[in-house]
Amino acid sequence: MSVTYPPGFRAAGVTAGFKPSGQPDLGVLVGDAGTTAAALFTTNAVAAAPVQVGRDRIGRGRVRAVLVNSGQANAGTGSRGIDEAMATSAAFAALIGASAEEVLPSSTGVIGEPLHVSQMCTAMPTLVGALSADGGESFARAIMTTDTVDKQASAHAGTFRVGGCAKGVGMVAPSLATMLAFLTTDAAVAREDLQRLAAGCLAPRFDGLTVDGCTSTNDTVVLLASGAAGREPVTPGTEAWRELSAGFDEVGQSLVAQLIADGEGATHVMIVEVDGAESDDDARRVAKAVADSPLVKTAVFGGDPNPGRFLQAVGAAHAPVDAARLDVSIGGVEVAIGGVIPPAYFEPASALAQRARAAMKEAEIAVSVRLGDGRGTSRAYGCDLSYEYVRINGEYTT
Amino acid sequence: MSVTYPPGFRAAGVTAGFKPSGQPDLGVLVGDAGTTAAALFTTNAVAAAPVQVGRDRIGRGRVRAVLVNSGQANAGTGSRGIDEAMATSAAFAALIGASAEEVLPSSTGVIGEPLHVSQMCTAMPTLVGALSADGGESFARAIMTTDTVDKQASAHAGTFRVGGCAKGVGMVAPSLATMLAFLTTDAAVAREDLQRLAAGCLAPRFDGLTVDGCTSTNDTVVLLASGAAGREPVTPGTEAWRELSAGFDEVGQSLVAQLIADGEGATHVMIVEVDGAESDDDARRVAKAVADSPLVKTAVFGGDPNPGRFLQAVGAAHAPVDAARLDVSIGGVEVAIGGVIPPAYFEPASALAQRARAAMKEAEIAVSVRLGDGRGTSRAYGCDLSYEYVRINGEYTT
Repeated sequence: MSVTYPPGFRAAGVTAGFKPSGQPDLGVLVGDAGTTAAALFTTNAVAAAPVQVGRDRIGRGRVRAVLVNSGQANAGTGSRGIDEAMATSAAFAALIGASAEEVLPSSTGVIGEPLHVSQMCTAMPTLVGALSADGGESFARAIMTTDTVDKQASAHAGTFRVGGCAKGVGMVAPSLATMLAFLTTDAAVAREDLQRLAAGCLAPRFDGLTVDGCTSTNDTVVLLASGAAGREPVTPGTEAWRELSAGFDEVGQSLVAQLIADGEGATHVMIVEVDGAESDDDARRVAKAVADSPLVKTAVFGGDPNPGRFLQAVGAAHAPVDAARLDVSIGGVEVAIGGVIPPAYFEPASALAQRARAAMKEAEIAVSVRLGDGRGTSRAYGCDLSYEYVRINGEYTT
Repeated sequence: MSVTYPPGFRAAGVTAGFKPSGQPDLGVLVGDAGTTAAALFTTNAVAAAPVQVGRDRIGRGRVRAVLVNSGQANAGTGSRGIDEAMATSAAFAALIGASAEEVLPSSTGVIGEPLHVSQMCTAMPTLVGALSADGGESFARAIMTTDTVDKQASAHAGTFRVGGCAKGVGMVAPSLATMLAFLTTDAAVAREDLQRLAAGCLAPRFDGLTVDGCTSTNDTVVLLASGAAGREPVTPGTEAWRELSAGFDEVGQSLVAQLIADGEGATHVMIVEVDGAESDDDARRVAKAVADSPLVKTAVFGGDPNPGRFLQAVGAAHAPVDAARLDVSIGGVEVAIGGVIPPAYFEPASALAQRARAAMKEAEIAVSVRLGDGRGTSRAYGCDLSYEYVRINGEYTT
């Protein structure tokens, strides 16, 4: 299904040889002529070369294809990186009869290592030959790095279809977007409206995702609308717009859930719901602070609720917090009420502690934080901090 | 030596039974009549009861003693916690013929578990009996929790002496102070001037310390000046003030270095120096972002320089960063120049990579980040993220 679920798209993934493992590592997604595009990019000040080129090309308004390599991030590569992102995307554009401006380059992998330009160019004819209307799955596989599974999703949106795929298991704490995610629809949408949809509907979803609090240099979310379902554009305020937004929301939420479940070393997923904040922004800061806290993450790994660590994380979130009105529950078990952990929690064989401990054994742990009676809410998706995260990242390039 | 190195102080530490291990867990430090006090407290919005009581008592201007228990943090305990902090410090004050306002309560340990009031009161007479002018070492031991060694320091400051001790190995990322640190001098210093010295000289030192990015609910730094060396107060702008500041700085720096070396699970210390920033505050944000990054910390644990992770952390620091002017070196080896990782780094058997890798094997790893030609500088002390940190915090209360 994936990104080629909506009509109007072809995709492919092949092995160019960027990865020592020999797994597929070069992918492409192409929309038919007339496709519109919108994107969200990382806020990291050290943005990768393809992000810099991509920002410019999205601004020019002609993007309808993305060319993705995995193995080298093409970040920390300076002007050489920019030149190589432009040259390789231009070479690919020529092969499909498009101009370079129509192709958005995207990269993921080791930061600093230059692109393998000759390998990439050698593989391009094979890649073009493999383009197919059901190539979404091979595209989704070609963009993986340390991902253990591919992440794909699709939805119906009224008469339209929405598809998507994503990758990213570490260095994931998007500030506006996750590592790499690509979403498609067969609706026709003007590109300004598509950008509005990205900012309003998808940015909050991907903003709530954090594997390790590390915002990547390469985060990119791309939306492509082929218009294959009919050329009449879908515009804001209509029923079709609401249906399409709901479809993108469904695909975005599914991809976020798949990304966090495959977080590096993750053994448990943690969903932190914050409400009663003065603003959504305050709620977001608290939700991310809890989901990012190493002490909360190790408690989740150890299956030990340790309510004090949740209070500590909320209090240190740099948001207005009145400790006397702070309630925290884990899997529905109230472990702090009005900022106080019930003393019964610390009694031998405490029933409260036992219930909280049972809630921490679930694969998916629901943490609820109420800050007061404000209307601000937010949800963050996090995971635990395990020996495996340390192993993966202590050994990554050696 | 420690906190009783300067004349005018007595201290003691005994076992009251708060810790299952049976180690000493109740300590007291008392300055002679006329002692002045200043303090820095946590910025965590969920401040512990003793922090709330201590803030009030420091404001009243009569504090000359600190009573510290380890085992229970007396945080997340609400009004009961406040009552118990006041009651136990009042009981101790009565035993030494002081008023409650002269005693600052301080606690460290599990958040939420109530104080063991009866155990504490039972142990107090023994504690008072043990008070001694060379009791600094037993005090330093009684305040430890998961610390593996006690942390003590002393310095000469002209004709004066400065002493100090501290504890804290996890939940350490002071925003104004570390877990618990106590510094003393035999100089006479007016309490407003002592507070100035705390804010100007010690806050920047302790601010640079981060074990895990988790600002505690209990962080407290207390300065006590006994005046035993002579009643003439030391005032700002004098040579004696400069000497005394240098003495406090030396003791503060030594305690910070001892704290980070004993960071939970730490196998390497990382000292991040940032210069060329537009402001000290920008430099501080970048230094802390590098020292707190799980990807940098696991790279340090694995002994793999992985320069991209340092670029990622700098770029995500929420400070103005011009990637084109960003230089990073590790142990003096330049791994990024003008935001670019030298391509030679990725060549097989790269001499540059070998030198960087050798630098990462040192017990103390010096990371230097230059942001431009601004005058802002900062230094952060961090440590690696090891299997042992995950083990300690995955198993803490179970």
